[in-house]
Amino acid sequence: MGIEDFLSSGNMRLDQQLKFTAEIDKMTSVYRRTMLISGERTENDAEHSWHIAVMALLFKEYCVEEPDVSRAIKMCVVHDLIEIYAGDTFAYDTKANESKADREEEAADKLFSQLPAEQGEEIRSLWEEFDAMETTDAKYAACLDRLQPFLHNTLTEGHTWRNNGAVVSQVEARMKIIKDFMPEVYEWVSNNLDRGVDLGWLNR
Amino acid sequence: MGIEDFLSSGNMRLDQQLKFTAEIDKMTSVYRRTMLISGERTENDAEHSWHIAVMALLFKEYCVEEPDVSRAIKMCVVHDLIEIYAGDTFAYDTKANESKADREEEAADKLFSQLPAEQGEEIRSLWEEFDAMETTDAKYAACLDRLQPFLHNTLTEGHTWRNNGAVVSQVEARMKIIKDFMPEVYEWVSNNLDRGVDLGWLNR
Repeated sequence: MGIEDFLSSGNMRLDQQLKFTAEIDKMTSVYRRTMLISGERTENDAEHSWHIAVMALLFKEYCVEEPDVSRAIKMCVVHDLIEIYAGDTFAYDTKANESKADREEEAADKLFSQLPAEQGEEIRSLWEEFDAMETTDAKYAACLDRLQPFLHNTLTEGHTWRNNGAVVSQVEARMKIIKDFMPEVYEWVSNNLDRGVDLGWLNR
Repeated sequence: MGIEDFLSSGNMRLDQQLKFTAEIDKMTSVYRRTMLISGERTENDAEHSWHIAVMALLFKEYCVEEPDVSRAIKMCVVHDLIEIYAGDTFAYDTKANESKADREEEAADKLFSQLPAEQGEEIRSLWEEFDAMETTDAKYAACLDRLQPFLHNTLTEGHTWRNNGAVVSQVEARMKIIKDFMPEVYEWVSNNLDRGVDLGWLNR
């Protein structure tokens, strides 16, 4: 008796949904550069996605346009699924970012085709909307996706910055969406970036 | 310069929200009995919460009453937060379950009071609704909360059942909400439970 037997319900749609559920457990093995606040190890995509989904319940009051929290949470939980096949592309790795779009498109084709068509399309379209960062809900989710690792960095002595020789202009570029969409939160970001420089965690 | 400095924005509400965000990262250290499908280690509460949130996008067609997926996802991402202080209570540990309600109430008081009042109340009320398992949305989230570890168990050679001497009646009691609320999915559960018994993973 193999895994396939346990994923056979007699209903092909249900089989697809169960298999997909099992497949995405691989998110727990996609490790990011960000350290957990405990300092124990780096976090994985499942943990990160969960964390920003909860944050979506908390930070909307700082947005310049009011997001639909429910849609933003959906984006948060699915925004990194394609990394199961495409891997995590470190935000400050210029070379890896050149091939990112192609790798992620291919990963999306492979991943979402495993679901019943309309469900694959729904999740893919949430991911595409997130990635394009054009709608209000996507901007909110994107801000959280950047705010969470920034918070972790400040609470782990600049772990990711120190380990990867980040410079302020790179972090500022990454945080630009927060500056535009959550200006009050960006003040906090900017102050802590200055502190990070003072502490030698990253250079200007 | 300490952690407090990095969590001081000059806005007390924002400080509370940032501190709470940092605090709940502890979900990554609350380990459950369920093995990851990779077999590498047991999963933690952050991973589990994320996993069932994605599942909420997929399984509503099997429910006897149509749930509001957005509300169910919110419950999924917050339903285990109180375990940061109360710990994970193993479903089949009778003794630990006797003190569960009290421990969790106390944990909820401690956790949610860290947020601005109305936000703490919103999340607490989502958790209480989930826990009571009375509304349609809570029933759906509760089904996913039971279906996910069941799926993991079937794909890890009955890991949790074998390691904890589970018997069929215990698993059936735990799965009762799926039987009532997602009967077609329960057929799959029931068939795999029989297979588990045949393979000696658990006893009747």
